[in-house]
Amino acid sequence: MTADKPFTVWAPHAQDVRLHLDGETHPMSRGDGGWWVSDQLRSPGQRYGYELFDGEEWSKTLPDPRTTHQPDGPHGLSEVTDPRFDWSDDAWTGRALPGQVLYELHIGTFTPAGTFTDAIEKLSYLRDLGVTAIEIMPVQPFGGERNWGYDGVEWHAVQHSYGGPEGLKQLVDAAHNAGLAVILDVVYNHFGPDGNYNGQFGPYTVPGNTGWGDAVNISGENSDEVRAYILDSVRLWFEQFHIDGLRLDAVHAYDDRGAYSIMEQMQAIADEVTARTGVPRSLIAESDMNDPRLITGPEAGGYGLAGQWVDDIHHALHTLVSGENHAYYEDFGSMAALEKTLREAYYFTGGYSSYRGRNHGRPLNTREIPAHRLVTYTTTHDQVGNRAGGDRPSMNLTPAQQVLKAAVIYSSPYTPMMFMGEEFGAKTPFAFFVSHTDEELNRLTSEGRAREFSRAGWNHAEVPDPADPATFEASKLDWDLDDGQQEILEAYRTLLRLRRELGLARPDLSQLIVETGGEDDRWLAMGHEDVMLLANLSGRAVTAPYGGELIYSFTSPEVGAEETALGPWEFALIRR
Amino acid sequence: MTADKPFTVWAPHAQDVRLHLDGETHPMSRGDGGWWVSDQLRSPGQRYGYELFDGEEWSKTLPDPRTTHQPDGPHGLSEVTDPRFDWSDDAWTGRALPGQVLYELHIGTFTPAGTFTDAIEKLSYLRDLGVTAIEIMPVQPFGGERNWGYDGVEWHAVQHSYGGPEGLKQLVDAAHNAGLAVILDVVYNHFGPDGNYNGQFGPYTVPGNTGWGDAVNISGENSDEVRAYILDSVRLWFEQFHIDGLRLDAVHAYDDRGAYSIMEQMQAIADEVTARTGVPRSLIAESDMNDPRLITGPEAGGYGLAGQWVDDIHHALHTLVSGENHAYYEDFGSMAALEKTLREAYYFTGGYSSYRGRNHGRPLNTREIPAHRLVTYTTTHDQVGNRAGGDRPSMNLTPAQQVLKAAVIYSSPYTPMMFMGEEFGAKTPFAFFVSHTDEELNRLTSEGRAREFSRAGWNHAEVPDPADPATFEASKLDWDLDDGQQEILEAYRTLLRLRRELGLARPDLSQLIVETGGEDDRWLAMGHEDVMLLANLSGRAVTAPYGGELIYSFTSPEVGAEETALGPWEFALIRR
Repeated sequence: MTADKPFTVWAPHAQDVRLHLDGETHPMSRGDGGWWVSDQLRSPGQRYGYELFDGEEWSKTLPDPRTTHQPDGPHGLSEVTDPRFDWSDDAWTGRALPGQVLYELHIGTFTPAGTFTDAIEKLSYLRDLGVTAIEIMPVQPFGGERNWGYDGVEWHAVQHSYGGPEGLKQLVDAAHNAGLAVILDVVYNHFGPDGNYNGQFGPYTVPGNTGWGDAVNISGENSDEVRAYILDSVRLWFEQFHIDGLRLDAVHAYDDRGAYSIMEQMQAIADEVTARTGVPRSLIAESDMNDPRLITGPEAGGYGLAGQWVDDIHHALHTLVSGENHAYYEDFGSMAALEKTLREAYYFTGGYSSYRGRNHGRPLNTREIPAHRLVTYTTTHDQVGNRAGGDRPSMNLTPAQQVLKAAVIYSSPYTPMMFMGEEFGAKTPFAFFVSHTDEELNRLTSEGRAREFSRAGWNHAEVPDPADPATFEASKLDWDLDDGQQEILEAYRTLLRLRRELGLARPDLSQLIVETGGEDDRWLAMGHEDVMLLANLSGRAVTAPYGGELIYSFTSPEVGAEETALGPWEFALIRR
Repeated sequence: MTADKPFTVWAPHAQDVRLHLDGETHPMSRGDGGWWVSDQLRSPGQRYGYELFDGEEWSKTLPDPRTTHQPDGPHGLSEVTDPRFDWSDDAWTGRALPGQVLYELHIGTFTPAGTFTDAIEKLSYLRDLGVTAIEIMPVQPFGGERNWGYDGVEWHAVQHSYGGPEGLKQLVDAAHNAGLAVILDVVYNHFGPDGNYNGQFGPYTVPGNTGWGDAVNISGENSDEVRAYILDSVRLWFEQFHIDGLRLDAVHAYDDRGAYSIMEQMQAIADEVTARTGVPRSLIAESDMNDPRLITGPEAGGYGLAGQWVDDIHHALHTLVSGENHAYYEDFGSMAALEKTLREAYYFTGGYSSYRGRNHGRPLNTREIPAHRLVTYTTTHDQVGNRAGGDRPSMNLTPAQQVLKAAVIYSSPYTPMMFMGEEFGAKTPFAFFVSHTDEELNRLTSEGRAREFSRAGWNHAEVPDPADPATFEASKLDWDLDDGQQEILEAYRTLLRLRRELGLARPDLSQLIVETGGEDDRWLAMGHEDVMLLANLSGRAVTAPYGGELIYSFTSPEVGAEETALGPWEFALIRR
């Protein structure tokens, strides 16, 4: 990474390797463990690539798997970058997960220009909103300029069209100066389909369908270097980019069969960097396993991650308010499901999941695992974007319904997260979009998507073409807020302020009170001896058997001494 | 299982199912969860099968996946058995793993007749030898009459040619009355290639190469019933067959991705049956993972199994005495490897395994995990039978070398196991043999085996044809012992007696002394303050810096007050 080191590349099966450097070709010599070494030294600004000889012919010039910059995208030459940066965040002491409020954003659609630089302009807005950390959807290079980011191929680099590595550092530096932490979403379970040349260098993948392609080789032969490729990337984000946390995409798709989980190894790096720098570094898994082991401490045999996403709470809440029950929503949609999930964090604790066709999950020990390890939300990129039309809840629900859902999440002890634009009820969709450089790939993606939704019963016409630039453009947030949106935004701001002031991020889940009136009388009471959220998850007036003094509502509930009358989709945060 | 229950079968994707019972066909009706139910009641002695309709045509009559008896082999009709048996082992209180000495045997070649009944006749011999438990290689039905047992297809039944379920019960009953526990080797990671009809009933497998075929579906859609198929089998062996322990074949090939490992679920059954019957039930994993989680208690996040096989000790010892270093032996062959492995139980604790091409294993906490959880050996069916010629160490080593290896194992704190015939240095090979009912399968097996060994550098001519009945016949033990064999047998008997009398099965590994003289002076000292094994792992005389009083040797070492002179391959068990 530093300027005075020779060029090296891992290519264990190559017969020969040569360096293509600024237009000239240089031989390389075989070192230990499948590494090849050049006598040329790295210097920032150089453009380079490697050529591999398989015994019969030389490959074309390929980008470095460990490239840190691809100025022309994943297919072009790599560029040596200067790891140094003029950081101004020395005063930043970081934020561990407890007490945080996350804001998930997609660089390309967060602002009109879709760059890191433009995102900087929104930081003060987010801080004023009450957000404590931005969570950036993946920025590792992908084909073209439009992609959610889950098609990244070069895991040590940053998408050029967003502003490249310099741009990301500028955003992180600015965020820290604005008092915001930065969490980066990183995909280590598969490589994108466009621009992935790693397989020509070595066994980066193994057969095994993750749903998005071959599995990454972290357990098979020659997997040590692939693990190192990932682990060095984890370290890179923490050390060179000052990233505060990583959101690990779909860890259930890791082919992780060694005696050491790669998650433990990632956590060891997070722990080491935390201890050395004094700035907390967090790992947050996106896990579809409902396995407490991920967020259990190592003393109890866990991986010790700081947190995990928990879809169950989303599903329990979303189904009740939206009335939807398709696909993975089918096991939810009841007050009983909401009650269990809010109390135990997981809905599936070993019982049958009809969506999965098998028993799923195991109980989380609510006396041992603090609530802040569970990241909850009413909207994410997936829950919006993986709908046929990419329509947000705000496009289907009333403002009162939207704020009701937010009130449940922000009054809960779990770590809350919102998806960009949710806070003002954005009316722009967040559709799935791609811009692969191979038109055939675009066609396959479009057709696959249409087919997938067609099977699920959606009307084909509703599915925007992912490869159409208009789909991307339409997904950009419209920051010109109308009065209704301003009202929603103010409600979010208030809920976040009250969360802080009332100290609602209480870690001990075993102390949380959760009650409901059942399926016919759909009030929810959630809280503590001193403060309680009362919410009506129905369009019928209900009376919740708790009273006191109203702290906040989006509407006008009648809070009595012993009970509270709630109109349709109404809530009341009360002091008891 | 009892006589008055209706016939039921799980066939979730069938359009229709009918029962073929004693020559007549009866309709079945669809019940819950993919189960089909007949109005016919089960009664011992009935012969039956099922026929499945896939919407277009009816299948032929298929055996019940949950059959408990296949009198005509895996392709024939199933037979209802009587779960009752006239047990005479009421006085049997069982044996937990601590202090045990295991004896692995293959029913078909253990005795001339190759049946459970004949094996009974050897029990008193084994007891007198000092064995405490027999470990029976798999007996689940396979094609034909000659097979190691790892091709089993009907996991609730017992190979008819061995004597079927009645025969196994008789053997267990007799073993218990002889004071011996019975451990059964069970294969739950794949189905055999001959006679496996389960896939026609339901999704018993999923794509994924275990090395022996598709993986068993214990994590995918509809996996609950497949897990139940396995877990009910575990319970069956314990409850109906009075089995004391199960040896779980190749658990690293389980496709075990749920929040609950199937091993935890098996252990829960073992715990429950232990508590209810007062007879300890043990689970012993064959694991190529070097992952202490398997034998760590649940309080520390482990699966809590009673034990696991540990090949590393075998390899460390075998390589030094045999001088072999091919394939998975390549990382061993040094005194340093032997010393580390004897002290830590695992040789691979996270370091690089050149055989696997990756880092392997993690350290086992020797203060927490008692030594008896590790099952060790100088010979197993695999370490013999997976050689080209199936040649035993006794066919390549001197008696002194054989007994030296035994002395190390039986003086160690680990749970020792021997492979049938090892105790007298049997000169019969234990070759790989099959008798698939499909000649094409036999041909493929023979060719595959020849190819495998050819690749590994063995002479093709040395590989016996697995399908040739003579290969099987030659593998039968020859119980007509010559004088040399009697001497080896007496040495084993003495070593086992001393192991008991000196209490060498000491659980606290952190107290074990292990020292060596290094690679040029190959003495090993292993033991405790009071008693020590001194061994010369070389053909050159050495002097070990420990002395005292000779307790036992196979030869005549010179034991002094401060040091002991050991001739080639000599050992001395001394009192200090």
